[in-house]
Amino acid sequence: MTAPQDALTRADNNLDNSLERLFALLRIPSISTQPAHAGDCRAAAEWLQKELTDLGFTAAIRETPGLPIVTGHSKAPAGKPHVLFYGHYDVQPVDPLSLWTADPFEPRLVESPSGTKEITARGAADDKGQVMTFLEACRALRDAEGQLPVGVTIVIEGEEESGGANLLPFLKANAEELKADLALICDTGMLDPDTPAITTMLRGMVGEEVTLTGAACDLHSGMFGNAARNPIQVLCDIISDLRDGATGRVTLAGFYEGVPEIPEATRELWRKIGPTDEQGLGSVGLRWPAGEQGYTALEQTWCRPTCEINGISGGYEQDGFKTVLPAKATAKISFRLVGDQDPEKIRAAFREHVRARLPKDCKVEFKAHGGSRASVVPADMPGLKPALQALSDEWGTTATVIGCGGSIPVVGEVKQALGIDSLLIGFGLDDDRIHSPNEKYNLTSFHKGIRSWVRVLTALAR
Amino acid sequence: MTAPQDALTRADNNLDNSLERLFALLRIPSISTQPAHAGDCRAAAEWLQKELTDLGFTAAIRETPGLPIVTGHSKAPAGKPHVLFYGHYDVQPVDPLSLWTADPFEPRLVESPSGTKEITARGAADDKGQVMTFLEACRALRDAEGQLPVGVTIVIEGEEESGGANLLPFLKANAEELKADLALICDTGMLDPDTPAITTMLRGMVGEEVTLTGAACDLHSGMFGNAARNPIQVLCDIISDLRDGATGRVTLAGFYEGVPEIPEATRELWRKIGPTDEQGLGSVGLRWPAGEQGYTALEQTWCRPTCEINGISGGYEQDGFKTVLPAKATAKISFRLVGDQDPEKIRAAFREHVRARLPKDCKVEFKAHGGSRASVVPADMPGLKPALQALSDEWGTTATVIGCGGSIPVVGEVKQALGIDSLLIGFGLDDDRIHSPNEKYNLTSFHKGIRSWVRVLTALAR
Repeated sequence: MTAPQDALTRADNNLDNSLERLFALLRIPSISTQPAHAGDCRAAAEWLQKELTDLGFTAAIRETPGLPIVTGHSKAPAGKPHVLFYGHYDVQPVDPLSLWTADPFEPRLVESPSGTKEITARGAADDKGQVMTFLEACRALRDAEGQLPVGVTIVIEGEEESGGANLLPFLKANAEELKADLALICDTGMLDPDTPAITTMLRGMVGEEVTLTGAACDLHSGMFGNAARNPIQVLCDIISDLRDGATGRVTLAGFYEGVPEIPEATRELWRKIGPTDEQGLGSVGLRWPAGEQGYTALEQTWCRPTCEINGISGGYEQDGFKTVLPAKATAKISFRLVGDQDPEKIRAAFREHVRARLPKDCKVEFKAHGGSRASVVPADMPGLKPALQALSDEWGTTATVIGCGGSIPVVGEVKQALGIDSLLIGFGLDDDRIHSPNEKYNLTSFHKGIRSWVRVLTALAR
Repeated sequence: MTAPQDALTRADNNLDNSLERLFALLRIPSISTQPAHAGDCRAAAEWLQKELTDLGFTAAIRETPGLPIVTGHSKAPAGKPHVLFYGHYDVQPVDPLSLWTADPFEPRLVESPSGTKEITARGAADDKGQVMTFLEACRALRDAEGQLPVGVTIVIEGEEESGGANLLPFLKANAEELKADLALICDTGMLDPDTPAITTMLRGMVGEEVTLTGAACDLHSGMFGNAARNPIQVLCDIISDLRDGATGRVTLAGFYEGVPEIPEATRELWRKIGPTDEQGLGSVGLRWPAGEQGYTALEQTWCRPTCEINGISGGYEQDGFKTVLPAKATAKISFRLVGDQDPEKIRAAFREHVRARLPKDCKVEFKAHGGSRASVVPADMPGLKPALQALSDEWGTTATVIGCGGSIPVVGEVKQALGIDSLLIGFGLDDDRIHSPNEKYNLTSFHKGIRSWVRVLTALAR
């Protein structure tokens, strides 16, 4: 079976309409972590249900204890495999809003100084733009051939950016309905703007929020300073102790248990194909790997665990100065995991680290924010080779397998609930500014992403 | 000359009217550190000018590069001394507003669980309530005796809570107009609710705001975590290094130069008269002195220097969780000084401490927020003994001299500009929650404060 020329041509000719549909979805501020946006999240789910129905899927909105999940079903042609596609319709918060050059929810197609056409909006790359590459590929294939080359079940959740606690129970409860030969997940990136990639290594994550309380109320730092415990000082001591200043290693007891060393051959390969530290960090105005000594930036983010302080807050934070000795201080801290690191063991070790450093007169409260193991896709996974070939054909460059510093818990959850592996195929780039102001998705990623899925779905049918 | 019975009786009989006038001033949200309240600050100044005029002072509003200063003049009877009274009409910000049980600018007289009558509002104790004890005493004396027993010049500024940069230049520029035999400052407290005090030791202060910048924009902590420098982590390391964990001593180079040891006799006395750690810290729900080992809470706040983190901010601080690796982190840090510590030397040592710990790929910005030396009133200062006697007479308990952990730069500025010492007489209490939610001033402090000034002004005339 040759490349589905007709479908590819339709993808090209209908690009403007595809873009219009993406923009409509991007205009919905579906921020899942902020309760005020619950209604917007539901609106995004309803928009997708309508879209799937329009594409010929049997689509439904499925309620959960949290935000709804959208499902769609399209039967497999006789003897063809069935795939499960996963994506998420929720997006990250937009603060600090002041750093956005335009309304995060008023998508625009702009040309960058370097001449690249970029789709700018919150969610353009993570994950609405990527989800729409798949749906628009389905549209092109259906229009061209009347049906999809393989059976497709679609699951689009709304809590990926806020812990995603309700997905696993949903997958388990509907395992029979959702069973497939393999899963396709479009939430990752390419190696570089020219080289497509399938991500086979993902870091896990543990999120923790810690709040320290000292005095019964905020105090005057003159009247009480020195004698009264300052929770910000205590929090800084605790955070500073999380890393060894000299080696950059995380100090939690047993943290590196189950962390595999990177095979020398792999390091060799990455030094050849991967970005240098200068390239990787240069894209965000940095130059020197900051974390674990003895590893390149690429190795640190693909294959080494870390501890990051995602937020800290306490005392007087506005303009001017206030000589307060605050009663409370809070930090949001996440750990990225690799290999066999156990999220719950690490959560426990962190809480022990804090308690062991808690002075008299200080109380602590913890809040858990999700936990997931790292995952690695087996090299002999069904569909991996044809998918790599299809990507290579579309981009004219040999597709490669890569790692990803991010965490995509769904990979482990799909494996656990449905017993199948996932192909992580995505078209994001390192400079897409996901989770940051002025998030963007290159028009090329969107256009060739659609074309790539046309080829991949066709290849998987063989 | 006996106690001015008539004036004291008038102070008693007019207490309700005095309270009404205080409430009117408390209703003006004169927060000097927040530019949005500049108009309110001016309104407070205008209210005071009217009040002083009504009291027979030659009153004026004096413009400065910042917020206006209110002055008032009342000539001395032949052969009587002339005093300069200082207070401030500006107040601290009110955040976190959610912790206030009532509108901070809707003053109320409430009865505490223990039966104490309390005036609750921002500024009730710091410093509007205290300023009004003096003005109401002037009213009682004038009504009773047709004139004040001593000459009185009044200076009420509006930037005490925001650096007060414009006071010293004003004092210097108007030294001739403002000259007096001594200064009276009402911005301090009593030893305890029964024991009046004159504060003879004040700590100085250095305020610094430090902002660290890493990457060009906020990053995804999965994609960049470990490899990209995290400014919150760096800031926590720097802050943690400011104190020796074992001894609680500040680690800045030369920090303890000019810090005198506390004479053993003084420590003895304070152990007798002063609150125990349990009493002092117990009032705010704490128990254990947190700072420099080997000193009681009282010694730590009256006579030892400290470093306090007044605020910290960076990354995602709202509800939920966001896996961001922030581009910036900020802290507001203040140092309290004693003895001969030099504010500018300590500012320089702090900035050097930060720069010495700044990793590659990290930039730092500093903002100075005021600096003042510590001050000590000489034991033989004119007026000290008669004032102590007058306070003892009013409260029926021997008045004592105490220290104060806070900083009142005006003491040094008055000495520098006008060459006179200050008597720090105030009626605040440790549990007044100044700079905190639900600030209060005991009705007893207000009432007996007025009576105390009647006696002190009379005593100073002898």
